[in-house]
Amino acid sequence: MAFKENYPSKLLEEAVDAISTLPGIGRRSALRLALHLLKQPQENVHHFASAVKNLRDEVKYCRTCRMISDEDICSICADRSRDHRTICVVESVRDVMSIENTGQYHGVYHVLGGIISPINGVGPSDITIKELIERVADLVSPEGMFEADAPGIDGAPVEIILALSGDVEGETTAFYIYRQISRYEVKVSSLARGLGFGDDLEYADELTLGRSIINRQIFKP
Amino acid sequence: MAFKENYPSKLLEEAVDAISTLPGIGRRSALRLALHLLKQPQENVHHFASAVKNLRDEVKYCRTCRMISDEDICSICADRSRDHRTICVVESVRDVMSIENTGQYHGVYHVLGGIISPINGVGPSDITIKELIERVADLVSPEGMFEADAPGIDGAPVEIILALSGDVEGETTAFYIYRQISRYEVKVSSLARGLGFGDDLEYADELTLGRSIINRQIFKP
Repeated sequence: MAFKENYPSKLLEEAVDAISTLPGIGRRSALRLALHLLKQPQENVHHFASAVKNLRDEVKYCRTCRMISDEDICSICADRSRDHRTICVVESVRDVMSIENTGQYHGVYHVLGGIISPINGVGPSDITIKELIERVADLVSPEGMFEADAPGIDGAPVEIILALSGDVEGETTAFYIYRQISRYEVKVSSLARGLGFGDDLEYADELTLGRSIINRQIFKP
Repeated sequence: MAFKENYPSKLLEEAVDAISTLPGIGRRSALRLALHLLKQPQENVHHFASAVKNLRDEVKYCRTCRMISDEDICSICADRSRDHRTICVVESVRDVMSIENTGQYHGVYHVLGGIISPINGVGPSDITIKELIERVADLVSPEGMFEADAPGIDGAPVEIILALSGDVEGETTAFYIYRQISRYEVKVSSLARGLGFGDDLEYADELTLGRSIINRQIFKP
């Protein structure tokens, strides 16, 4: 049955319009949420609105790895006890959080901020591949000024872990990156396929994901 | 599986805290929504935040029926073509919208703004029962100054339709209101209970089916 929309108030309609732009929230759920918010104390709703606005306005991205951060350099990149010569390349912020939650990884990250997807109009230049290449170049060249003096034994092998989803877009992106960085003297690995093919990284349980990090394998395209 | 929460940013954590206060949205969904909002254009997020804030700050409730409205009197109460001597009593704004969508009702409404529920600490004085009684009193007394001059034939019978849920709380509230208004000369009715249209007889619960038999109606093909 179609849900006819005769909103008793323009304000309500606008709030429903806004809330229903969120992924997975239809207009019916949006109406429920709007009416819920209406019943809350005013200060709670103000807090809700400003928390969302502040997030968008004030969040920073780590200058090195592009992870969400409150500082210019995120807490992972700033951690001298981590291995800065092992870089785990992921699609999104959520992937970093998922891998951190396994407690199995002690290197650093590189957040691509997306995945190569011609169908969605996302090409290699839309994500942070160029920045990744620059990081790799800095790490392997002795003149590298930025990360060559980062923790990890200088001259120790550099490893790039391609921790991307197992779908076509993830594989395409991994292959593209592999071709770009294989000219440098780096070891390139990918997550062990303990994950089923086509599984989305963000839905994997921690045990499987942790095992996949430990059993990462040489990338063989 | 527990979702360990090591947020890379305080701002992100605060947004997740706020979003997860919404009903039916857990912390994992809230994180997804927060990261979605982060990827949207800044003006969209500002619009989202202000739509929610404006709704809470500026929405009005109809002085007569307590329905959400942009004016002091809602469009239904302001409509002279509706029967103002038939009042449909509902729990919430959503119920008004649902009944309006049927196109079958041409009277006015009274929104209780809740339901009597001792277990949730909601008593008769927490919802707009007092206001309903005053409306009824005004309608039936010839001296009534507020609604006695409302459309509908003056002196025509007043009908109160108790359109409340069929659960214990709804029945309790209906009974409480009935006792309060039965001292006035009004007809009190409630929604017909029976099988829904298209319902399969064998799946109907016994209570509903029993009520349908008792309240059987003349067959009008």
